[in-house]
Amino acid sequence: MARHVYQATLRWSDMDAYRHINNVQYLRYLEEARVDMMFTLGQREGAKTLSEGVVIARHEIDYKRPLVWRPEPIRIETWVTQIRAASFALAYEVLDDDGVYARAASVLVPYSLDGQRPRRVNDEERRYLEGFLEP
Amino acid sequence: MARHVYQATLRWSDMDAYRHINNVQYLRYLEEARVDMMFTLGQREGAKTLSEGVVIARHEIDYKRPLVWRPEPIRIETWVTQIRAASFALAYEVLDDDGVYARAASVLVPYSLDGQRPRRVNDEERRYLEGFLEP
Amino acid sequence: MARHVYQATLRWSDMDAYRHINNVQYLRYLEEARVDMMFTLGQREGAKTLSEGVVIARHEIDYKRPLVWRPEPIRIETWVTQIRAASFALAYEVLDDDGVYARAASVLVPYSLDGQRPRRVNDEERRYLEGFLEP
Amino acid sequence: MARHVYQATLRWSDMDAYRHINNVQYLRYLEEARVDMMFTLGQREGAKTLSEGVVIARHEIDYKRPLVWRPEPIRIETWVTQIRAASFALAYEVLDDDGVYARAASVLVPYSLDGQRPRRVNDEERRYLEGFLEP
Repeated sequence: MARHVYQATLRWSDMDAYRHINNVQYLRYLEEARVDMMFTLGQREGAKTLSEGVVIARHEIDYKRPLVWRPEPIRIETWVTQIRAASFALAYEVLDDDGVYARAASVLVPYSLDGQRPRRVNDEERRYLEGFLEP
Repeated sequence: MARHVYQATLRWSDMDAYRHINNVQYLRYLEEARVDMMFTLGQREGAKTLSEGVVIARHEIDYKRPLVWRPEPIRIETWVTQIRAASFALAYEVLDDDGVYARAASVLVPYSLDGQRPRRVNDEERRYLEGFLEP
Repeated sequence: MARHVYQATLRWSDMDAYRHINNVQYLRYLEEARVDMMFTLGQREGAKTLSEGVVIARHEIDYKRPLVWRPEPIRIETWVTQIRAASFALAYEVLDDDGVYARAASVLVPYSLDGQRPRRVNDEERRYLEGFLEP
Repeated sequence: MARHVYQATLRWSDMDAYRHINNVQYLRYLEEARVDMMFTLGQREGAKTLSEGVVIARHEIDYKRPLVWRPEPIRIETWVTQIRAASFALAYEVLDDDGVYARAASVLVPYSLDGQRPRRVNDEERRYLEGFLEP
């Protein structure tokens, strides 16, 4: 039961005209953390099908503090809060040693390879996701 | 009491490797709708201070149907669901004549010009926002 | 022999921390103009294969004046400067009634559907591109 | 006389609907390399003014091979090809151990802090840039 940790690189252009990291780009960092968790790590640890199609059903995000570009990455901690028959839920924190910049949550739906239809969470995926479960 | 309507132009590059409009880009469309409502229209109708600094405190979004790039814009309907002392809430629908692609909501906080501090919703802003109130 | 004209919508987030439209985003506007010329218009006028795969071999762009976000679109004028056996060249101007913001040029290479290989410009494409030829 | 080396992180969303890194995003990687060279490293080594305003006058880029997203970064090598009174030129290679993905060049113009006007390359900047000179 460990959180997935991803070090996200900020790009200078993630700042907007207010000279803060734009609120939409936080969702981009969450995507990068998910890609690392589902695709890169998932493929290595046997949950290959997760990288073949997972669709976002819902996001929510609370912004806690403004973030300014710097060369150092920020940490995205991701964990699983629920695994259902045909969907699962993630929670995230965007943070560094100074504190938390945002908290977020997503609902994801596995998608079938052949059709363009949602499908059930398979056993291999369930085992993989349970390793990050923290309800 | 009318919804604000914005026609958002999709960019071909808003699609990701799954050949759908990427989920993060929907938040970009919401931003464009807010910019039109707060900056462009707000300035014309007297709520100038809204364009000088409004910070996002929270977003939530539910994805209803996948969206594929096409030259025709999509419609973003935005309305105000709550006006408090130092924040206000928006709701949105992303749609076209075929139906709804996403529903979303945001909490926004006015920011003072001089300091980098939140401030109260002023009278002019309240009047402007009440024109879009649909609790 | 007419230039292709595309009205590109600026997004507020195309501005960077210097409060100007970021130099990279100009290339995005050129992409939108090409998509309109190759995909949308090309498909209507019979050069369907152009929308199935064209690869960028080269870009060059000269920035003439800074551009600041505004609700009004900017005009991208695009024309063909050369048609060779397996590639063609475009030139562009990014402008409005106040003058020219950038001039650019690209070399494009048609790509085959089946293989992942470059292919020759076919007759239908040549006819379509000749309509924009201004050497 | 050493090239500046930057390891650019690819984002999954840098891929477009053709499942390749989009051509425009290469310019984003060049920007990240320049930010590292001009802002981060420049500030540490005494050329502080470079981080206060440098404007792009021109880019050119030749694409050599398609690039597909992977977790490993790609290397951007940057060097200075010319230092003039009020501008300087950079060259870049985008590469990894498998070879070169793109070659590019830019012309940059220092900008004054106070006015919104171009200014001359100062002595401190010239010394810093000469460390990367490879005409």
